Amino acid sequence: MGQVYWKKGNKKGIFSLFFRSNKKRPYYVLSGIDDAIDKIIKFRFTNDDILYLKSLSVFDNDFIEHLKSFHFTGSIRAMKEGTVFFPNEPVIEINASILEGQLLETLLINEIHFQTSLATKASRIVNSSKNADVIDFSARRTYGTEASLKAARNSYISGFISTSNVEAGRIYDIPLAGTMGHSYILSFENEFDSYQEYLSEFPDNLVLLVDTYDTIEGIKNVIKLTKDYDCKVKAIRLDSGDMELLSFKAREMLNNAGLNETKIIASGLMDEYSINKLINKNNCPIDIFGVGSNYGVSADLPVMECVYKLVEMEGRPVSKRSLGKQYLPYSKQVYRYYENNYFDHDIVTKQDNILDKGIPLIDQIFDQGNLMYSKLPINEIRTYVSKQFGSLPDEYKDIDSVEKFNVEVEI
Amino acid sequence: MGQVYWKKGNKKGIFSLFFRSNKKRPYYVLSGIDDAIDKIIKFRFTNDDILYLKSLSVFDNDFIEHLKSFHFTGSIRAMKEGTVFFPNEPVIEINASILEGQLLETLLINEIHFQTSLATKASRIVNSSKNADVIDFSARRTYGTEASLKAARNSYISGFISTSNVEAGRIYDIPLAGTMGHSYILSFENEFDSYQEYLSEFPDNLVLLVDTYDTIEGIKNVIKLTKDYDCKVKAIRLDSGDMELLSFKAREMLNNAGLNETKIIASGLMDEYSINKLINKNNCPIDIFGVGSNYGVSADLPVMECVYKLVEMEGRPVSKRSLGKQYLPYSKQVYRYYENNYFDHDIVTKQDNILDKGIPLIDQIFDQGNLMYSKLPINEIRTYVSKQFGSLPDEYKDIDSVEKFNVEVEI
Repeated sequence: MGQVYWKKGNKKGIFSLFFRSNKKRPYYVLSGIDDAIDKIIKFRFTNDDILYLKSLSVFDNDFIEHLKSFHFTGSIRAMKEGTVFFPNEPVIEINASILEGQLLETLLINEIHFQTSLATKASRIVNSSKNADVIDFSARRTYGTEASLKAARNSYISGFISTSNVEAGRIYDIPLAGTMGHSYILSFENEFDSYQEYLSEFPDNLVLLVDTYDTIEGIKNVIKLTKDYDCKVKAIRLDSGDMELLSFKAREMLNNAGLNETKIIASGLMDEYSINKLINKNNCPIDIFGVGSNYGVSADLPVMECVYKLVEMEGRPVSKRSLGKQYLPYSKQVYRYYENNYFDHDIVTKQDNILDKGIPLIDQIFDQGNLMYSKLPINEIRTYVSKQFGSLPDEYKDIDSVEKFNVEVEI
Repeated sequence: MGQVYWKKGNKKGIFSLFFRSNKKRPYYVLSGIDDAIDKIIKFRFTNDDILYLKSLSVFDNDFIEHLKSFHFTGSIRAMKEGTVFFPNEPVIEINASILEGQLLETLLINEIHFQTSLATKASRIVNSSKNADVIDFSARRTYGTEASLKAARNSYISGFISTSNVEAGRIYDIPLAGTMGHSYILSFENEFDSYQEYLSEFPDNLVLLVDTYDTIEGIKNVIKLTKDYDCKVKAIRLDSGDMELLSFKAREMLNNAGLNETKIIASGLMDEYSINKLINKNNCPIDIFGVGSNYGVSADLPVMECVYKLVEMEGRPVSKRSLGKQYLPYSKQVYRYYENNYFDHDIVTKQDNILDKGIPLIDQIFDQGNLMYSKLPINEIRTYVSKQFGSLPDEYKDIDSVEKFNVEVEI
């Protein structure tokens, strides 16, 4: 269809990206805008691409010639990375020749859907954990290496304290955290020997896994280590078994041995639901959660309806009418209204419809091919997410919430 | 823990990767071995990595020096890419210094878990589709670009006929398929105009989306086009609404207009469950399914328990004993037994325990750092998957099957 667009004069269109509502996420944490912008800036057809397109014998030569010099020349408006937003609110709008807008569709949906899914899931997990810290352990369960890096990034901006993904630590400047694996312990004749050797290498950073053979015996070995060597153990890690029972028992054993400072890490299929049960329902004495499998693919909701729709065509408002897939035409702005420092309601209106009092959430990022913004450092995005989340009323934070935020439409 | 391994003489260990059982996948299609091997060959610490590790002030200098020249020098045995396998069967085993084996853990689990998840999901979708073809539309819903390429690859090896992912088509030599988007139609004043223009550009490749405004009107516009221009329409695409009702109605309208050759494509949240309902339960006249969202993240089961465990240490068998996480020690071989060309049972035994009659599934791939195999071309892997799947007894193919294949253990 790009070829048709181009031949017919490649008119101007405005595309809008938004998320439809679903029953599991009353709010979203926006992520992927910054990376999407990077990819848009770099979007080119390489020589190999051009040769391949020619080999398909589908496109006209003059259209392929045009693609050789393709680069983005349009304008972009978007919400800020890390913004808390709601269903049906546009988060990014592309105003460009319709060929350009169309060629970016898959790239934009892919990047923003997947990173927003992760940032949103991470925010739910952090909220369930209350005073406990959360570490990203998702690298082995994400769909590819790229996804593992982005999972670490999104977990951090939404409030995890560190990641076990060393490469992500390096690239994004995220604090690292790691613990030994079971294979480490198994490589020794017995568990106590493995602890002793670890102590001799990392005396100041002792985090010991206690469930390889028998958790209670493991904790006894930790206590024996502290007695034999007069050392401090930063934390023990429980990775299997009945977490409720074991965390209380571990706390009791550690405290009785005077190890009140030794923290308890819990890992193994953790997510906002299991953490909520342990922390809020049962008050388990767990200090840190290692979260992996269920986070890295947003397991309870891996797919959301994130769509990218043509809303204006040469000034003419457009919209689909097929059942259940209708959406609002026009380029838009979203205004946010606060009440006592909490979000009260949003108003979605036409871009050129200026409302006072509300805070406009969509900023100009590109102007006719020229980049107009700089990305914030990751720690500033993290602070912004935390502040945004702090202003979200509690009823939307409950993990089972099906509350709908009041998003008014004035079009 | 790598530093401890290295300081203590970096002994030899054998690690084994396998999938535990779950209630939604009675069989798995192995994928990711070839890409994992590529990554192992290239595994190095770059200068940036070394500087970063130094900056952490956690590791000794002599250990970091050792990492500078790190490359894989061990041996690897694995099942062939595309093999149909079952829970608890080892699919790849690494025999190497324990530091090397441990450093590969995340890489191996990540690559093999995610690609096997996709290949297995794709095989279920193809099987549900019976005589209908399936096209990969997943690019916008995968977790990143890398995942979108691998999703296309895995869908193709498991029997999809094509992908809409042009880059994947180029890289993997997979046939391409695409249809117009809704925005294409919306960019015109009316639907019929958009069809006319498409016809003028792609007279031999007319696939028309009919649900933008009103599906029945859309089909009428298609029929009018064929009458006005005496052209052939390859297919129409239904993307919303009641697929059962609409597919029968569309078939009837097309046939009444003499367009018996025009195919019907159905898309929109398709997966093995929805396809099964349409095809096997309701016999809908759908010729092609476009499958995206629910495939690209294996939505009904995004995470499987894929683990990588130390099974031998300097010849000593090892295994965890924590509750529910036990596994079989020893380096192993899997023998497969057929009955009337169907899989009958497998036997898992020690590697050096030679059983006759059964077919050994695990081959040597690396021998002490030397690559010993060549990857098969993608079409040969596709043929192999199809043949393997053809030998899988029907009771495991049902999408709701909870049958357990007979995997005997002789250790």
